[in-house]
Amino acid sequence: MRYELYYWPNIQGRGEFVRLALEEAGADYVDVARRPGRNGMPAMLTLLGGKRVAHPPFAPPFLKCGRLLIGQTANILLFLGARENLAPRQDARRLWINQLQLTIADLVVEAHDTHHPISVSLYYEDQHRQAKQRAADFTRRRMPKFLGYFEEVLRRSGGPYVLGSRITYADLSLFQVVEGLRYAFPKAMRRLERKAPRTLALHDRVAARPRIAAYLASERRIAFNEDGIFRHYPELEG
Amino acid sequence: MRYELYYWPNIQGRGEFVRLALEEAGADYVDVARRPGRNGMPAMLTLLGGKRVAHPPFAPPFLKCGRLLIGQTANILLFLGARENLAPRQDARRLWINQLQLTIADLVVEAHDTHHPISVSLYYEDQHRQAKQRAADFTRRRMPKFLGYFEEVLRRSGGPYVLGSRITYADLSLFQVVEGLRYAFPKAMRRLERKAPRTLALHDRVAARPRIAAYLASERRIAFNEDGIFRHYPELEG
Repeated sequence: MRYELYYWPNIQGRGEFVRLALEEAGADYVDVARRPGRNGMPAMLTLLGGKRVAHPPFAPPFLKCGRLLIGQTANILLFLGARENLAPRQDARRLWINQLQLTIADLVVEAHDTHHPISVSLYYEDQHRQAKQRAADFTRRRMPKFLGYFEEVLRRSGGPYVLGSRITYADLSLFQVVEGLRYAFPKAMRRLERKAPRTLALHDRVAARPRIAAYLASERRIAFNEDGIFRHYPELEG
Repeated sequence: MRYELYYWPNIQGRGEFVRLALEEAGADYVDVARRPGRNGMPAMLTLLGGKRVAHPPFAPPFLKCGRLLIGQTANILLFLGARENLAPRQDARRLWINQLQLTIADLVVEAHDTHHPISVSLYYEDQHRQAKQRAADFTRRRMPKFLGYFEEVLRRSGGPYVLGSRITYADLSLFQVVEGLRYAFPKAMRRLERKAPRTLALHDRVAARPRIAAYLASERRIAFNEDGIFRHYPELEG
């Protein structure tokens, strides 16, 4: 069955964590709002606010698989992980991967809030002073804490992946986090990467996987930009 | 097997979503950091930073069940839901409950950030001006959006619970959200509650369940206070 991914067409955003899983799995999927020559936005917005949908999503991304409509990034990955062999079958390990994914989700919220600390309804320019304060805290305190945590997780697993030798969707997401942080906060990352060799090794290993490498080189991979979650505003790095 | 819950002893916080599930299930559990006459904090901090733990949690709450150590609130509830009959067995419905719980978690982060928009390392007093801006956005835009969403979910389920007649852990969490928002933003809630009759009916129904009613009346239920997630600072309501 062909998956339908619904997400904003011009950003990586949270949809990218799902795209990476679909790509690594070699799954048959369509990125609805990005279909060439067709405007997929109405279809997305219909499902989002649709009165006929039994389980309406709160926000994109969401994934359609037959009659099933699934929202919330970590939840989509929980579903895909089981179906596409990107998660372990055993309960305790499956919960551990979900736990790591939720910790990554926490980091993603915090990375987003560096440029939108006051309101998602205001432009960055209207909250850039507060953004500077929040970004300073994020790069000085939160990034080291999160990266130190994942480094420790990899130390205990023995690497290269969070579960050891077998890749999971959480590894793909951790790759994306490194990509995003490098784009948004290159100075802070240069400083922190020295202390996170295992996380960087994981990043490089994921990037070199044939399907991921092909995806990253394709037009399907949207470039980072200042509409997404990870944004590069040089002034936020002090 | 007796569950061990590890969470800060003086606040409801995120731990409360787990406490409510354990209480409704009538589960045998110990709230480790709150054991009378014993300081449970060292035990919690040992597990948090412990080098011998295979799956270290990033932050409290976490739950111990035999050798299993589980972190991230929504993940703990996913685990407890299956074991304690607070979630449906069928995959699609189980994912739907997880999806709703993750949306509740998003709301909880935003409620927290109304008083800490810049940094968790700073006191509220050192970011109260920015807090006022963020809280204004939260009460005017985000609270109506979230409450409207849950109201719509209940409209589609037919109520009283998000899945219909059967209670799940997401219903307990939605009860807690109403409690928390009433405490933190009483003015905004008075205005919004008129448009959310189904959500209020769910709240009252949960509050009246025998085990929950007994819990709420007990000393195990910590009162809301200004160290938790839902804090009442009158100046944040303008």
